[in-house]
Amino acid sequence: MNVVFVAIACGLIAVLYGILTSRQVLAAPAGNDRMVEISGAVQEGAKAYLGRQYRTIALVGVVMVVLVAYFLGLTSAIGFLIGALLSGLTGFIGMNVSVRANVRTAEAARTSLQGGLTIAFRSGAITGMLVAGLGLLAISLFFWYLTGPAGHIAGDRTDRTIVNALVALSFGASLISIFARLGGGIFTKAADVGADLVGKVEAGIPEDDPRNPATIADNVGDNVGDCAGMAADLFETYVVTLGVTMVSIALTLSGTPEEMMRLMALPLIVGGVCIITSIVGTYMVRLGSGQSIMGALYKGFWTAAILAVPAIWVASTWTLGDLNAVIGGGDGGVGGFTGMDLFWCMMIGLALTGALVWITEYYTGTNYRPVRSIAKASETGHGTNVIQGLAVSLESPALPTLVISVAVIGAYQLAGVIGIAFGATSMLALAGMVVALDAYGPVTDNAGGIAEMAGLPDEVRARTDALDAVGNTTKAVTKGYAIGSAALAALVLFGAYTSDLREYFPALTVDFSLSNPYVIVGLLLGALLPFSFGAFGMTAVGRAAGSVVEDVRAQFRDNPGIMDGTSRPNYARTVDLVTRAAIKEMIVPSLLPVLAPIVVYFVITAVAGRESGFAALGALLLGVIVSGLFVAISMTSGGGAWDNAKKYIEDGNYGGKGSEAHKAAVTGDTVGDPYKDTAGPAVNPMIKITNIVALLLLAALAAHGG
Amino acid sequence: MNVVFVAIACGLIAVLYGILTSRQVLAAPAGNDRMVEISGAVQEGAKAYLGRQYRTIALVGVVMVVLVAYFLGLTSAIGFLIGALLSGLTGFIGMNVSVRANVRTAEAARTSLQGGLTIAFRSGAITGMLVAGLGLLAISLFFWYLTGPAGHIAGDRTDRTIVNALVALSFGASLISIFARLGGGIFTKAADVGADLVGKVEAGIPEDDPRNPATIADNVGDNVGDCAGMAADLFETYVVTLGVTMVSIALTLSGTPEEMMRLMALPLIVGGVCIITSIVGTYMVRLGSGQSIMGALYKGFWTAAILAVPAIWVASTWTLGDLNAVIGGGDGGVGGFTGMDLFWCMMIGLALTGALVWITEYYTGTNYRPVRSIAKASETGHGTNVIQGLAVSLESPALPTLVISVAVIGAYQLAGVIGIAFGATSMLALAGMVVALDAYGPVTDNAGGIAEMAGLPDEVRARTDALDAVGNTTKAVTKGYAIGSAALAALVLFGAYTSDLREYFPALTVDFSLSNPYVIVGLLLGALLPFSFGAFGMTAVGRAAGSVVEDVRAQFRDNPGIMDGTSRPNYARTVDLVTRAAIKEMIVPSLLPVLAPIVVYFVITAVAGRESGFAALGALLLGVIVSGLFVAISMTSGGGAWDNAKKYIEDGNYGGKGSEAHKAAVTGDTVGDPYKDTAGPAVNPMIKITNIVALLLLAALAAHGG
Repeated sequence: MNVVFVAIACGLIAVLYGILTSRQVLAAPAGNDRMVEISGAVQEGAKAYLGRQYRTIALVGVVMVVLVAYFLGLTSAIGFLIGALLSGLTGFIGMNVSVRANVRTAEAARTSLQGGLTIAFRSGAITGMLVAGLGLLAISLFFWYLTGPAGHIAGDRTDRTIVNALVALSFGASLISIFARLGGGIFTKAADVGADLVGKVEAGIPEDDPRNPATIADNVGDNVGDCAGMAADLFETYVVTLGVTMVSIALTLSGTPEEMMRLMALPLIVGGVCIITSIVGTYMVRLGSGQSIMGALYKGFWTAAILAVPAIWVASTWTLGDLNAVIGGGDGGVGGFTGMDLFWCMMIGLALTGALVWITEYYTGTNYRPVRSIAKASETGHGTNVIQGLAVSLESPALPTLVISVAVIGAYQLAGVIGIAFGATSMLALAGMVVALDAYGPVTDNAGGIAEMAGLPDEVRARTDALDAVGNTTKAVTKGYAIGSAALAALVLFGAYTSDLREYFPALTVDFSLSNPYVIVGLLLGALLPFSFGAFGMTAVGRAAGSVVEDVRAQFRDNPGIMDGTSRPNYARTVDLVTRAAIKEMIVPSLLPVLAPIVVYFVITAVAGRESGFAALGALLLGVIVSGLFVAISMTSGGGAWDNAKKYIEDGNYGGKGSEAHKAAVTGDTVGDPYKDTAGPAVNPMIKITNIVALLLLAALAAHGG
Repeated sequence: MNVVFVAIACGLIAVLYGILTSRQVLAAPAGNDRMVEISGAVQEGAKAYLGRQYRTIALVGVVMVVLVAYFLGLTSAIGFLIGALLSGLTGFIGMNVSVRANVRTAEAARTSLQGGLTIAFRSGAITGMLVAGLGLLAISLFFWYLTGPAGHIAGDRTDRTIVNALVALSFGASLISIFARLGGGIFTKAADVGADLVGKVEAGIPEDDPRNPATIADNVGDNVGDCAGMAADLFETYVVTLGVTMVSIALTLSGTPEEMMRLMALPLIVGGVCIITSIVGTYMVRLGSGQSIMGALYKGFWTAAILAVPAIWVASTWTLGDLNAVIGGGDGGVGGFTGMDLFWCMMIGLALTGALVWITEYYTGTNYRPVRSIAKASETGHGTNVIQGLAVSLESPALPTLVISVAVIGAYQLAGVIGIAFGATSMLALAGMVVALDAYGPVTDNAGGIAEMAGLPDEVRARTDALDAVGNTTKAVTKGYAIGSAALAALVLFGAYTSDLREYFPALTVDFSLSNPYVIVGLLLGALLPFSFGAFGMTAVGRAAGSVVEDVRAQFRDNPGIMDGTSRPNYARTVDLVTRAAIKEMIVPSLLPVLAPIVVYFVITAVAGRESGFAALGALLLGVIVSGLFVAISMTSGGGAWDNAKKYIEDGNYGGKGSEAHKAAVTGDTVGDPYKDTAGPAVNPMIKITNIVALLLLAALAAHGG
């Protein structure tokens, strides 16, 4: 139990870091009145959107909590509520930090690049540490309650409470995060694309020009999509990964309650010590003599990652004792691997994280072939820009797939499915740092918007643009990292599904062999989900952006004073329009991964019996990850590459701003926007929801003798 | 044996139809001198390209035939040669017919729409019937030789000659067809995209303007890509589907030699009678009072499909005798289904074909929501056009996946894997008609080009354009149909793989369960192949189109007389440039599916032993189809929709030709071009090659005690 307390303490330290750093950021000057006014409008719009989004999600949440309580009991319902509320809270805090940091970053960038970087990165770090800290607190406090006051025993195979409650907690987090990711993603890209099309392309005014009625909506989008949505998503990834590791320990290993307690606490303490190394890392983010922003951020990331090695070693030794003892050995134990094997699995997770970061930078950074090839292709027009962007997009999953395959094989050979679970856990242990790098991006993007609208000198905008370009890569990094960890987590979830199946329905022999046509059909239907989901996301953005265009055209037409600068556009009307569109469009696709497993199970069971139904459902879970990995990586890397190809041209290559190549690159960027910020990232929570719903379905069927 | 003779006779009838109809087409007037001259240049370019392509492929072919002979013996090597040579021959004939029919179609369109339709469709029907006829002849004559003069016995489990020879024949056909599809696809789209970018966009001259140096290359491309490449591809699909059905009968059923002979001959006779119904169908293609071109083509298709029902019934009854007798029953027989079950499986195949045709028309026809939504999105610019196109593209695999899943379950419940095989066989039985509808498209496209270059009156171009718009849909139909049948065939091939594994390596227990991480890794690596392959295809087109643009710009610069019309551009130089680029670019991606299974098997075996290696290889085969189905359908339907959205605007909607919406639609069309004509369709032979190479690898390992 001591181990759990230390994990809780680490979570509290993260929260404390968040509070203290918030004070530092808020103490920084907020700029002149015009800047405060603009920032206020963005804040107001973001709060209004998030409020409406949460009210809508709450309706779905209430239905779900009743269902969970009915099928799985009160403890699980509490777990669901904790996951859901904290996921929502993380998004809310992330949004609140960034809407205040943006104007301060703009103000700090008036004096120096380092000043802007410091404020923006610190605000990102607040969100990062709160994501990791609240995630760790949620799961470790709940685990403490379950195994302490509530009196459940870790590893007791006759009592499903702990497992069901942890799965329900994950479900709560996932369900909120898919809505937040998708709703926020639709909002941000509808506003962004709409504002660009009607502002840059039609009216010929620059990005973030205050005359553009959609410009506040665009800046609100950065906060509700790239900050709040991303934070909820990564909170989910954190909680689900740690939770599923603990669940798979409970389902597949056996040992004394004390041994099981230690094993199940290991993911928590690993998460805890890595929060500390991440906090240390945040203090290493400083510009060197080369003024390389990416270099500064990397210093922080690599510090956190390298310090994690000894930290995980110490944590493992302290928790497990002798690392060379065979785990789960002894009375009827299964396992056959050692603590040392688990340590190596976690090293594989860290190495995989490093590899994914590097690969993503290669595909989305302006220094490498992929982005430059898109920039070059822009010279021959819109068509070749998009063709080359799609080529890069299709190419980008290759290396990640290879390194993920190597990691899966390595971890499995060391310690089976549990090894894969610990690999995923150590990846997520770095989440605080990774989110910090990501959440920094939208703050700089907003800072640039405020600088433009408030008419600050050009050098300020140049500084925020430099900070923002790096943000494109770090945003792609988070998404690649999240989906990579999702691949590992999904394999562990599938393992949990098969274990549960054996436990709940021992009389059934479900054939998961590829020779079973129901497995094939399940794989095909599962693989279909990310495609259909992506189609919904793209259509939603296209449609909502179209209505933004129409609204802005109408404002220009009805109020000619806007373009002269003699009268103010009605920003709130556009914000309200995008809000309604985003909330309407997010509902159906978000429910797709909830309903698909249930429908497939019941339809196939009706046609071919329960064994076929379970086989198809299991295969569906893997089908989702098999295609989801490719869809998500190709969209997020491709989108990042398109965006940075535009920035590369804006840096003066191939004719620079205003050239024909630049126009083509703007088209590519527009296409990449919903790819990378709406459809692509939402695939990550989608994969997890599908898997979790399947686990809950099993538990519900078993509990109700179904 | 009588049944086989009748099948051979049907194949000969198809060839006879081809010869007679060729005479009719060639007897039509070829137009004025200018038209003949242009058509001559296209012919010359197409022949030069095809010659060089075949010489390059021949090098690979010679290496392969030596390897096949060494590992599997002389009979298999002969099979490989037959498949390879006939695949090449089909492409050659297809190209030769279309380069002669194009000018005659243009001439006939001077008098009436019906005249143009007749010539164009007849030339398509020649290619269609030769694809089906030569495919049927290849496989039935070879089967006759093996079971007759060569003395092998159908169903003799101790003699692998028939199975290996049929697999080798399929391999030959597939290998040539992937080169032809990809090389031709790169050629046609590099020329098309390059010509459009530099002609329409930069120089502001219309499509097919004779001043554009790339215009002959563009027209050559239609013949070598959309005709020759498509014909080779569908030949492959035909031969592999029939071959794999026969192989899976030989591997999984047992019975007396006579029973086995009848069962193995059934796919041949089904193919034979459907050639006859397709020939009847071709005579039904006539414009009704509504002048609906699609309606005219559908009359032919539905006639062939509906007549196929009684034809297959009669053929089955004649071949199997009592349709209610249990198949393979009797002495140690396995099976447990009846001839009637097989008949119903074939009906499922026909229904699936009809459903895929309808779905493809929905997604690519100008009368329905998807195409119109892209056209509407063009109003707000290039970006929204591409976003909506990608949304349609991502959405398009949903319905095909659902109907394929239903078909797989239905056929499997009736007669297991053999049922799925017969479903695929009956789909392919309609290949003659489907190819006829497809091959008609590029002829009309070329006819339009010739009309434009020869300065024929506008109404001629209007007629050829109307014919061509329908061609976009029929081309998408063929691809959806081919990939749909590939999904079924791949399942049968996977069944053959597992049967072979049991037979060759009875001591091994290979675990194909989804719980095996090597299966997961295999699925991921397999799913990766279509993405990487697509990336190669898109990059190749982008790069080659870029060099076309540079060549044309150089010609305009060095020879100002071109734009005045006072001097002729150097068409041959552009054709030569595209030829070299296409041949260079096709090699690496074509070898990807040949090498991937071999590399994965040996690497995984080295790391984790042979059982894991075989498991990963098996999963790779299914991974390819699981993602390949989505990649191929999304690319081919999406590309068709983009193309027709442009045509819909050109018909006067959303501002018509020359409007901003039209420019955006041209961008979408450019993006869709390599999607639908290069990367997407080549996924079909790629899936089959991967599977066939795995089967050959097993045979080679077994034969050499590996």
